[in-house]
Amino acid sequence: MKFFEDTQVGDTFELSRHTFAAEEIKAFAQRFDPQPFHLDEEAAAQSHFGALCASGWHTASIWMRMLVEAKRRASEEMTARGEPVAMMGPALGFRDLKWMKPVYVGDTIAYRSEVVDKRTSNSRPTLGLVMIETTGVNQNGEKVISFVSTTFVQRKAAGA
Amino acid sequence: MKFFEDTQVGDTFELSRHTFAAEEIKAFAQRFDPQPFHLDEEAAAQSHFGALCASGWHTASIWMRMLVEAKRRASEEMTARGEPVAMMGPALGFRDLKWMKPVYVGDTIAYRSEVVDKRTSNSRPTLGLVMIETTGVNQNGEKVISFVSTTFVQRKAAGA
Repeated sequence: MKFFEDTQVGDTFELSRHTFAAEEIKAFAQRFDPQPFHLDEEAAAQSHFGALCASGWHTASIWMRMLVEAKRRASEEMTARGEPVAMMGPALGFRDLKWMKPVYVGDTIAYRSEVVDKRTSNSRPTLGLVMIETTGVNQNGEKVISFVSTTFVQRKAAGA
Repeated sequence: MKFFEDTQVGDTFELSRHTFAAEEIKAFAQRFDPQPFHLDEEAAAQSHFGALCASGWHTASIWMRMLVEAKRRASEEMTARGEPVAMMGPALGFRDLKWMKPVYVGDTIAYRSEVVDKRTSNSRPTLGLVMIETTGVNQNGEKVISFVSTTFVQRKAAGA
């Protein structure tokens, strides 16, 4: 929500944590990833995962919700302080989306983002490009998901 | 579902098509991506998208369901023909996940995958790595999503 000029490589953001319950893991899987180890405890126990675990797309989608909620809170706080809020476009794309460990029932994932690169846009001079690495870490300190996203962020008006 | 040795660069797979309805777009967004242009027609009309459109994670998650269903059908058909079915591991990761165009209410997305690279695994000699590029194309022939995934695929036993 900060303007491009105020965003620095190394800036970090802690998003909320989320604890994955069996019911939501199954509900997501029924709609979007109906594989036995996401749907049923007994079948999961027989699989290479060993226990019911969340679809990787579920883990990613929960991050999206955390991000939207965090942006909303930050905008409200900045507006309350009278600070101008920069527009942030939707992500242009993601690279290196990886799921390193399963997310099991009861696991609590903490999502954290860090600015890893930034550059101005040649084609759109009012915008900058910010590259953000996001990781989800479980309660044992193990990374379960990571990816790098690229997003347009508004630049300050010339002379502002 | 074919073994590594029978999988060739250039192999293509057509998955099912999916038409996105307003209700499912909103239901996904309420849970995972509560931004106005995914939640409400009026707010979306005021946004840069111009109309209600699906979360990118919704578009990706529907692909996952298409893939799981296609793998299940293929396995059943191969088993019915008496052919051995290769085990395919979960994806190791995705790169270059991009959303090029919004998916609006009523859009029908056709998902298609193509094998773009393959190599044996040094660390796991019973497995090969297959790189697959997937695209989703709307009814106007426009790409709306694309990504490249890397998956372990079972090799034939030596001498088989």
